[in-house]
Amino acid sequence: MAEDSEFCRPRLIRFSDCDPAGIVFYPQYFVMLNGLVEDWVNEGLGLSYHGLVAQRRIGLPTVKLEVDFRAVSRMGDQVMLGLAVERLGSRSMTLRVRCFEPVGGEVRMQMQQVLVTTSLETHRAVAIPDDMRAAILRNAPALG
Amino acid sequence: MAEDSEFCRPRLIRFSDCDPAGIVFYPQYFVMLNGLVEDWVNEGLGLSYHGLVAQRRIGLPTVKLEVDFRAVSRMGDQVMLGLAVERLGSRSMTLRVRCFEPVGGEVRMQMQQVLVTTSLETHRAVAIPDDMRAAILRNAPALG
Amino acid sequence: MAEDSEFCRPRLIRFSDCDPAGIVFYPQYFVMLNGLVEDWVNEGLGLSYHGLVAQRRIGLPTVKLEVDFRAVSRMGDQVMLGLAVERLGSRSMTLRVRCFEPVGGEVRMQMQQVLVTTSLETHRAVAIPDDMRAAILRNAPALG
Amino acid sequence: MAEDSEFCRPRLIRFSDCDPAGIVFYPQYFVMLNGLVEDWVNEGLGLSYHGLVAQRRIGLPTVKLEVDFRAVSRMGDQVMLGLAVERLGSRSMTLRVRCFEPVGGEVRMQMQQVLVTTSLETHRAVAIPDDMRAAILRNAPALG
Repeated sequence: MAEDSEFCRPRLIRFSDCDPAGIVFYPQYFVMLNGLVEDWVNEGLGLSYHGLVAQRRIGLPTVKLEVDFRAVSRMGDQVMLGLAVERLGSRSMTLRVRCFEPVGGEVRMQMQQVLVTTSLETHRAVAIPDDMRAAILRNAPALG
Repeated sequence: MAEDSEFCRPRLIRFSDCDPAGIVFYPQYFVMLNGLVEDWVNEGLGLSYHGLVAQRRIGLPTVKLEVDFRAVSRMGDQVMLGLAVERLGSRSMTLRVRCFEPVGGEVRMQMQQVLVTTSLETHRAVAIPDDMRAAILRNAPALG
Repeated sequence: MAEDSEFCRPRLIRFSDCDPAGIVFYPQYFVMLNGLVEDWVNEGLGLSYHGLVAQRRIGLPTVKLEVDFRAVSRMGDQVMLGLAVERLGSRSMTLRVRCFEPVGGEVRMQMQQVLVTTSLETHRAVAIPDDMRAAILRNAPALG
Repeated sequence: MAEDSEFCRPRLIRFSDCDPAGIVFYPQYFVMLNGLVEDWVNEGLGLSYHGLVAQRRIGLPTVKLEVDFRAVSRMGDQVMLGLAVERLGSRSMTLRVRCFEPVGGEVRMQMQQVLVTTSLETHRAVAIPDDMRAAILRNAPALG
């Protein structure tokens, strides 16, 4: 059920993700999906997320989110997390990120997320690094 | 800088709220603001959030979020969290929730959040309980 | 570097695990290691952790911890998490759980953890379920 | 029920502190108690925790914990958190930290925690800063 050029990773919904209602505590989706962004930078783009932050001192803060929560995820569910780039600007990009049930494809939540590349010294926006831009365009040439 | 009929509570940005960039890790804003919803139900509406969930088995899951992150919050910052009801439906409500700097009023992040009242047995929407509706209308008669 | 009958799983140290000092925020080790207990119940013992909690209403709360933190883990580190049963009582068990560097074997933190099986209705201790006891003894006959 | 020279702060057990069993998820106690250490440095010692970490680049990592969990805390409970210094070394200190029920005094959990002062550049132990040592001794002269 993954779409073309969507970067996907499976995820078990854990005890620690869930609230007293027995379902995912919604802030925890953003922790999971931040992990997906890390995996995408590391494995999808072939860069190092941690090198970006710790050595190159470039951050990827979120500036805008539009989120729909459509169905609950329960402890023990095996879900799929997916990420696709929708728009590539000079200092920002828009991602479509979602959590879905891997067999039937039911969407549990999805969001449009705008990330900005920033200097971690000043917290001001900087140009998307050339190697990151090149890697994104290699995966999704239509964005160029 | 709080607005009319905005429910506000101060909050210290803690070490545990912050990421390796030294600023609030964005999912942590939602944990803070979920705490504000608890305080609003308990203190603003005079009900018991925990009684609602644990005894009455009514949940308040989020179904929609539109979020703008405008400025960073750093470890040690004293911020103000504010909540106002924008729309009161039969089984859902729309809140405007924000984090701002208490002296100058700079908005750090703000969101529009749609909550639904659900049965925690079925996770299906149910009518907003009468005492909750009455308390909301007492505070903000214009919503009626 | 894993020891005999130690249940091990690799883990990437993520951005969300780390604090403004750029190293694992220590409470986050307990979240990771709770995930290891889940994986051990599911994959090591062949039971269902989530079935245990959600259907059978049996909890595994921690009653005692002795923890040594020996070396820091940094964002991006690939670590190994390991678990072994040290003692099997009638209603409790003692685990040795640790986080170590997988190549050189450097121990980052390790702990002795006493878990009790409880009824989630009463939060009182109950006998370790027969299938769990049998599975533990199959893996580590010396505990019998 | 607070003891002599114990630094205490009240805390509401929140929805976000609790797990699918409806009680505090044990790693969350350490997040709460790390917040108590922050409050103690800021308000009990009259220093700035965040200045210590962010400007002076001194960390307070935990190197050893011995923890007893004695009774569960539930969502909505009003608890008291307490901290006392047991031992003051040259580069480390031992705290006794606990969570208790404020009226009857029932102890929910308590721990002995060894903290080390470190340089955040090298993560090596450094001498406890003079102003911190002096403030601790002012509050608890018997430690000198």
